[in-house]
Parts: sequence; structure tokens; C-alpha cells
Amino acid sequence: MHIESRDPSFSSWRSKLHEIIFEANTPAGKYFDIVLIVFIVLSVFCVMLDSVSEFRAAYSTPLHILEWFFTLVFTVEYGLRLICVQRPWHYAISFYGIVDLLSILPAYLSLLIAGTHYLLVIRILRILRIFRILKLVTYLGEARQLTRALVASRRKIGVFLFTVVTLVVIMGSLMYVIEGEENGFTSIPRSIYWAIVTLTTVGYGDIAPRTDLGQLLAAFIMILGYAIIAVPTGIVTVEMSNAFRQPVDNRACPVCAAEGHDHNAVFCKFCGGKL
Amino acid sequence: MHIESRDPSFSSWRSKLHEIIFEANTPAGKYFDIVLIVFIVLSVFCVMLDSVSEFRAAYSTPLHILEWFFTLVFTVEYGLRLICVQRPWHYAISFYGIVDLLSILPAYLSLLIAGTHYLLVIRILRILRIFRILKLVTYLGEARQLTRALVASRRKIGVFLFTVVTLVVIMGSLMYVIEGEENGFTSIPRSIYWAIVTLTTVGYGDIAPRTDLGQLLAAFIMILGYAIIAVPTGIVTVEMSNAFRQPVDNRACPVCAAEGHDHNAVFCKFCGGKL
Amino acid sequence: MHIESRDPSFSSWRSKLHEIIFEANTPAGKYFDIVLIVFIVLSVFCVMLDSVSEFRAAYSTPLHILEWFFTLVFTVEYGLRLICVQRPWHYAISFYGIVDLLSILPAYLSLLIAGTHYLLVIRILRILRIFRILKLVTYLGEARQLTRALVASRRKIGVFLFTVVTLVVIMGSLMYVIEGEENGFTSIPRSIYWAIVTLTTVGYGDIAPRTDLGQLLAAFIMILGYAIIAVPTGIVTVEMSNAFRQPVDNRACPVCAAEGHDHNAVFCKFCGGKL
Amino acid sequence: MHIESRDPSFSSWRSKLHEIIFEANTPAGKYFDIVLIVFIVLSVFCVMLDSVSEFRAAYSTPLHILEWFFTLVFTVEYGLRLICVQRPWHYAISFYGIVDLLSILPAYLSLLIAGTHYLLVIRILRILRIFRILKLVTYLGEARQLTRALVASRRKIGVFLFTVVTLVVIMGSLMYVIEGEENGFTSIPRSIYWAIVTLTTVGYGDIAPRTDLGQLLAAFIMILGYAIIAVPTGIVTVEMSNAFRQPVDNRACPVCAAEGHDHNAVFCKFCGGKL
Repeated sequence: MHIESRDPSFSSWRSKLHEIIFEANTPAGKYFDIVLIVFIVLSVFCVMLDSVSEFRAAYSTPLHILEWFFTLVFTVEYGLRLICVQRPWHYAISFYGIVDLLSILPAYLSLLIAGTHYLLVIRILRILRIFRILKLVTYLGEARQLTRALVASRRKIGVFLFTVVTLVVIMGSLMYVIEGEENGFTSIPRSIYWAIVTLTTVGYGDIAPRTDLGQLLAAFIMILGYAIIAVPTGIVTVEMSNAFRQPVDNRACPVCAAEGHDHNAVFCKFCGGKL
Repeated sequence: MHIESRDPSFSSWRSKLHEIIFEANTPAGKYFDIVLIVFIVLSVFCVMLDSVSEFRAAYSTPLHILEWFFTLVFTVEYGLRLICVQRPWHYAISFYGIVDLLSILPAYLSLLIAGTHYLLVIRILRILRIFRILKLVTYLGEARQLTRALVASRRKIGVFLFTVVTLVVIMGSLMYVIEGEENGFTSIPRSIYWAIVTLTTVGYGDIAPRTDLGQLLAAFIMILGYAIIAVPTGIVTVEMSNAFRQPVDNRACPVCAAEGHDHNAVFCKFCGGKL
Repeated sequence: MHIESRDPSFSSWRSKLHEIIFEANTPAGKYFDIVLIVFIVLSVFCVMLDSVSEFRAAYSTPLHILEWFFTLVFTVEYGLRLICVQRPWHYAISFYGIVDLLSILPAYLSLLIAGTHYLLVIRILRILRIFRILKLVTYLGEARQLTRALVASRRKIGVFLFTVVTLVVIMGSLMYVIEGEENGFTSIPRSIYWAIVTLTTVGYGDIAPRTDLGQLLAAFIMILGYAIIAVPTGIVTVEMSNAFRQPVDNRACPVCAAEGHDHNAVFCKFCGGKL
Repeated sequence: MHIESRDPSFSSWRSKLHEIIFEANTPAGKYFDIVLIVFIVLSVFCVMLDSVSEFRAAYSTPLHILEWFFTLVFTVEYGLRLICVQRPWHYAISFYGIVDLLSILPAYLSLLIAGTHYLLVIRILRILRIFRILKLVTYLGEARQLTRALVASRRKIGVFLFTVVTLVVIMGSLMYVIEGEENGFTSIPRSIYWAIVTLTTVGYGDIAPRTDLGQLLAAFIMILGYAIIAVPTGIVTVEMSNAFRQPVDNRACPVCAAEGHDHNAVFCKFCGGKL
């Protein structure tokens, strides 16, 4: 497919590079992908370790070196991708183009915004590198079938989520009135937060009803949340059942008019007539 | 359809107004609906902000003005609805008629019951305005298919909920005997509350068993609750699978007028007549 | 059916009484059932209120009177049931016969074991009356279809529960070793209790891992528990799908040999031939 | 089947022993299995009791004796298994061979590594005996059907688990930035632990968001986790529905030898020959 869409004047080494970086059906392309996955996982692991204060204190220098090593590797990769695609701008503003850029930007930006009083900004920027993990998703072919089922049920899931939001807004408001600010339900938004914690059966326990009426309403919300989980499950199961099913042929037998033949059938299974 | 049911003497501007307010298939009707949805969401947002004490203190006046602005808008809308329907009383006592009234009443009532010693009453009345969110549900066409599946399974869900209630009553009572008042299980209703918190896998942790026997029974309830969730899920999935399935053919037999034929039927299954 | 199995010498008033008490298809029988349900719900409600210490202190005498009233009513009912069945002993040792007995016994036993130093025993006996609620289950016809689906999947559910038990025993033991007695995992049984609390996603938080390795294993158990819930749900959904399905006729058309006809079909839907 | 694969020179008593120990279709084999199951359950129970400090203090000697009794029994069993199989090494390095060895090794090792300063090591080794419970799984025939459904959905479940891991890594990192170390989110790994606790709806409450933005993100994660549970459930339900389904007819066409016909097929769908 990429043969047609490629400009004939496009140099051969770029075409070769494109094959290695973007395709996965050649030995070189496969090898490139595996190395990249290992680098992404290692770099995400580094960001994680960097956030543990004991590690940061003890291994400040090696973590710093590794961070710059990964940044350079991903910078080279980003540059190569820009060079070997025909429309660099198209790639740069695509989802994975932005993820690629975000994963190298923080290190460079940290050079500019140095100083102790920008700690929070740098911390946020550093974390952006964790989005490198998103690049792994492209390597999962199986995800497409699941995505199809979820896309098919997106409207029904949307209605379900809207109902859940309506429920938690009403329940949270009622709870705010019943329990009041003296029992931890200090505002409607906080009460709605509690209602979500309860309806989804998470149940932290940082806020919990203390009055009898509050516990009665809470019990009602819990049973509701317990039963309501059946709705998205039902929707997704039915859509998956449709998405995974082998398509049935809709040919009718010209002899006996029977339908419901398999897509690979040559003769009618009821009368033996040629389909 | 509304043509037949309308009194011919019914004035034309009312009929026009009815089309704008109650229907959504004209540009004006669609525009009216979108504006209304935005107003509802904003007014609900206002009630929420009003409940946060810092906001209430800082922005007392703008919140008060916005509140009266929304009340006036919804009062006008309520009045227009009453004017343009043929049977105003029928609308007024319908579900959405009551919701519409409840969403404007609190502001007016707060004028009558002024004074600091009625704070709780006013707080409750103010919250009623949050029910405006319910008006959004009417704008969801997709909800009907889900509702149909849930209505079809309402008896089975009822049996399931009754079983859950019986279980938590018995488990809560047993736990009250086992753990006793010294471990937080101060009464049977509270123990039943705990049983619901546990069976639905919410698990606040505000009340938790401390004796060995109590923890054994709790473990049993948890595994039961974990397995029992399969029941409503199974019910709803099967009913949805039926509700979403390709509709049965609505052809009537030209010979015997029987309906309910399969979509692949060629002959009537009751009289053998050609469909 | 009860006509054949009844001894002809069995007196007519007993037969009449049997009809009222055990059957529900006569007006008198239906009325008796409704009154009984109301009495059961009220008596269970009384036991609950009796356990709330403020209520017990304030309304000691009316609760005592109500308790004896319900005990007498259920005693009369138990006596009538014993009289009007042909084989009283058969009823007495049946499940509901024992429930009926247990629901009246505690009140009489509390007369014998009087005294303040038997408080716990009396408390336990009193709670037994709550089992009256089980008598309500007989009034649910819809429960049978659900029960059939659950019975059909009982072996698979059994294997699932065994796997869960094996998992929590191993996970609990590992956690006992990792976290140790200083972090609340004081023994293997308690660690297994924690593993159940975690795997079933209840999550009280009374015991929670504090070491890094413990939190890693806990995270693994949670994701496992989150994914494993799909197993009983899948089992029950498939069995319900089978249990609720309208049976398809297995007749083949004698003319065109097509199958898959509805059970009410008279003619073949493919060729119009008489089935 | 084992007849063919057995060396004719293999002595008859070994063959007899093999039948008793490894097979379950003779009375002796069945009896051996039941005794073994009872011994495994009792020995696991002993390890559990041994971990409860009060029990260990009070019944130190009987627990010690029982421990050595079970170790000897399982040692004899392990020896017999090694003797009666044709390829002992093959058995020794199989999964259950290793489990069998691990379940007896700790007791012997505790003799070598005696002394109070190796307590933790011994404790860990002792716990290994709990893996004896894994031997019970072999006795569950029903497990195979469930396993088949899970194996069929392993790739899709894998994609789902990968998505969950990606989500918790990103959510945990964001939460680390939003809440920061002062609210308990002391590092990214700990924040990821919190994200898993929340997404799986476990919700211990040992770490909970305190800032408004944190609670907003937490609410989003909860609703996501609540809806996302539908995905594995849907996958497993559909695969089970396939695995449990009535087997496809296993008739082969007498003309073209093709298989895979529907159970209602009369003619071969590939060549039209009569089945």
C-alpha cells in the first residue's frame, strides 16, 4: 500500500528507513520495534524511580545520566521519523507525533527553567515523559477488535454514564442536606465525590455517613451501584458477542429458499441445491 | 399526531409555541432545547458552587443574582409551557411538570421563610433546584432501548434484590450476635448497614469485624457478594441480548393475518400461505 | 393434585383449612397469605427495633407486648399447619417447618432461662426470630427460573470458588511472610481474611500492606480479583441465556427437510409444506 | 493409553502402584486420592494454626509432631511416585513434581538451618508447604472447560490488562503531581498503587486524595474502573458462550469427507452430497 502513496523521487535510503521505523514486517523493522519497546519501558521505570525520594537522593547522578541518555535516544528517533516520512508536519501533529515530542521536551525545558523555585513546574514536565508508555499501544493488534466493540456501544455507554452522573448529583445533594457539614459532607461537590466513591463500590471510608437516615440512603446507593454495574456489562457483552461472531451468509437457496447458510457453504445444507 | 388531538379553536401562536417548546424537529425547537440544556447545567453548577462555603462567602452577591436570573428564566419557561399545552393541569401533575415546579419554588419560598433560624429548611429547598438536571433525561433517545431491557428484567431483578435484602438482614443479625455492641455493631439496623457495605463490596471500614468468628462470617459474605454480582449481570445481559436483537419481521400473513414471522420466513408458519 | 393424595376419611374442615393455609389460589388463601406476610415483616421490624438500645430503653413494654403478640400468632399458625396437614411429622421436619418452629421457640425459651447472667443466650435466641423472613421466599414464583440457572452452573461455580479459596490461601500465606506480624498480618488466617477482603474488592482498610513488596503483591491480587470476577459472571450469563431461551422445535419439514421451526409453527416457513 | 507407552520389562507391582497413585478409575486409586486430599487439607490447616501465635505457644509439641507426621507421609508419597513412574526425572521437574518436593523440603531444611537468627527464613520455608493445596486442583475435571474458555480469551485479556496497566501508570503519575508528597502520594510507584486500589474499586482508604482536583481525577478513575470491568466480563462471557455451546455435528461428508456441518444439515455444504 505504501508503494502507491510514495513519491517516486523520494530517496531510497529514506524509503528503507521508513520501512525499518514504521513497518514491522521485515527483520530490521521488528528488531527496531523490540529495541524501542525495551527503551520505553526502561525510561518509564527511570521516571518512576526518580520520584522515590530515597532513590533520588542516593542515585541522583546515574538517574540524571540515564534520563539524558533516553532523551537523546528518543530525540534521534523523533528526528529520524520526521526525516523519513513524506509529510513530516502530518506526523508531527498526529497523536503519536505529539506523544513523541512530549516525551523529549521536558528534559530540554528543564535546562531553561532551572532554579529551585520552579520545582513544581519541572516535576510536572518530568512526568510528561511517562506518556512514552502510550507508544506501546501501537504494537497491539488485538486491541482493534475490542475497540470496535467499545465504539459500537459508545452511545449506550454514554447514556449509562449520563445516568450515573445524574444519580450521583442528586444523591450527593440529598446526602449534603441529610448529613450536613458537621459529618464531613462539607459541600455538594464533596458529597458528589462521596456518592461516586460509594456507587462505584470503591468505598474509601474517608467520608462515611453517620446519621441513621444517611446510612439508609447510603445503603440504597450501594445496592443501586451493585445492581447498576450489570448495565455496562450487558451492553459490552452483547456488542462483543456481535463483534466477535463469524458473519453468517445471507444467501437464500435458489431451490428451497432456505437461509442461514455458512459463509463458506457451496451447496444448500437442507436440500443439497447449488447456492 | 398532535394535529388530531388538538382543538381546532386552539390559537395558531399557541400551536407555534407548543412546537418550539415541546417538539425538537424544527430549527427553532432544536435551538430552544439547546439553550434550555445549557441553562439547566449552569443553574445546577450554581447550586453546587453555592454549597461550597468559601465560594458562598466570597461570591455571595453574584451567586444570588444568578440564582434569581435562573429562577426567572425557568418561571417564564414554566408559564409558557402551561399556556401552550391544551390541558395545563395534565402537564402540571405530570412528572416533568412537578420537576419544573420544584426547580423554581425554592427561590420564592426562601422569600417567605426568611430568617437565620430556618437555615436548614432553606438549605433543603435550595437543593431541590438540583432536580432540574432530571429534565436533561428527556433529550436522550438512546435511553429507551436500555430502559426496555431493564423493564423486561424488572421482575427477575426484583427477586434478586429481595434475596439480597433477606441475606443482609440474616447476615447483619448474625453479625450483631457474634461481634456485639463492643465492636461497633451497636444494633441490628447498623449491622445490616454493615452487611450491605460488605456484600456490595463497598467496604468503608468504618465498621469492621474484630473477632475471629466475625471475620470468618465476613469473609463468607464477601465471597458471596463477589459471586452473587453475576446474577443481575446475567439477567440484564440476556434481556439486552433479546432487546438489541434484530427485530422480528413485521409482515402479516395475507391469508390468515398472523404476525410474528421470522425475517427469513417465506411462507406463513400458521397457515402455509405465501407471505 | 392434593385431591388424590388425600385420605378420604380426612375431615372436610381440615381440608378447607389446608386450602386456606397452604394454597394461594382461593380468595381466602390469598388473604391469609397477605396477612401472614404483613405479620412477618412487622415482627422482623420489631426484632430490629428491639436491638437499638435507645428504643429498647424507651419502649420496653410495648416491644415486649408486641413480641408476645407475634409469638402467639405464629404459634397458632404453627398449630393450625400441624393440624391440617395429613403427615404433621413430615411438615415439622421440613425446612419451613423448622423455620416456623425456630421463630416461636426463642420467646418461650426466654421464660425458662430467665436471669441477667444468660443475656447472651437470650440475645442469640431472640435473633432466631429474624429467620421468619425466610418464609417470604415461598411467595416468589419468579425465583424458580433464577434458581434453575444457578443450579445448572453449580459445578462450574464450585470450581471457581475452589480456585478463589486456593488463591486467597496462597496469597494470604505469602503476605503473612512479606508483611509480617508488625504490619497487622498477625497470622495466616488473618492474612487470608485480608486476601479475601482485597480479592473481592471490598477493601476495608483495617489491614493494609505497608511494605513496598507487600503493596506490589496487593496490586497484583487486586487486578486478579478485578479480572476474575468475569468468570462467575460469564458462567451465570451463559447458563441464564440457556435457561431463559424459548425452546426451538426440532421438527424437520417433510417436504424440504428444513429445521429450526418455532414450536408453534404449523407449516414450514421455507416451503409452506405441512409440518 | 499408558499400555502402549509402558516398557514391557517394567515390573508388574510398579505398574499396579502407578495405577493406584496416578489413576483414579480403580477403587484403590480412588481411595488413595481421597486419603491424600484429606491429608493435604489437614496439613494446610496445621500450617495455618501454627502461624497463630496463641496456638503456637499453647500447642507447640502436638503441632510439631503433626508437622513431622505429614512430612513423612508426603515424603513416602513422593518416593512412591518417583519409583512407579517410568521416567522419574520427567516427573521430578514437572509442575506437580516440584510442588510435591517443595511441600516436604521446608521441614528437612529447618533441621539444617536451626537457630533463632534464621527465624524469617524458616518461616518462609514453612509456608511453602501451603502449596500442597495446589495438588487438589488436579482432582477437578470441571476446571478444564473453564480453563479452555480462559485460554481462548487470553490474548484479549492480555490487551485489557495492558490497557489497565497503562491507565494506572498515567493516572498514578498525574495524581503524584496533583496531590504531591504532603498528601500521602509520596512517589509514583505509591501513586500507581493507589490508582490500582481505586480503579479496581478496592478502595482501602489508607491513601485518599485531599485536594479538589485530586478528588475530581479520583472520581473520573472510579467511574472509569466501574465501566471498564465490563470489558473482561464481556470477553469471558462470549468465549464461555462459545466453549459451552452444543458441539458442532461431527459427521463427515461421505462424498468429500469435509467436516464441520451444522447439526441440522441434511446435505454437505461443500459438495452437496447427502450426509
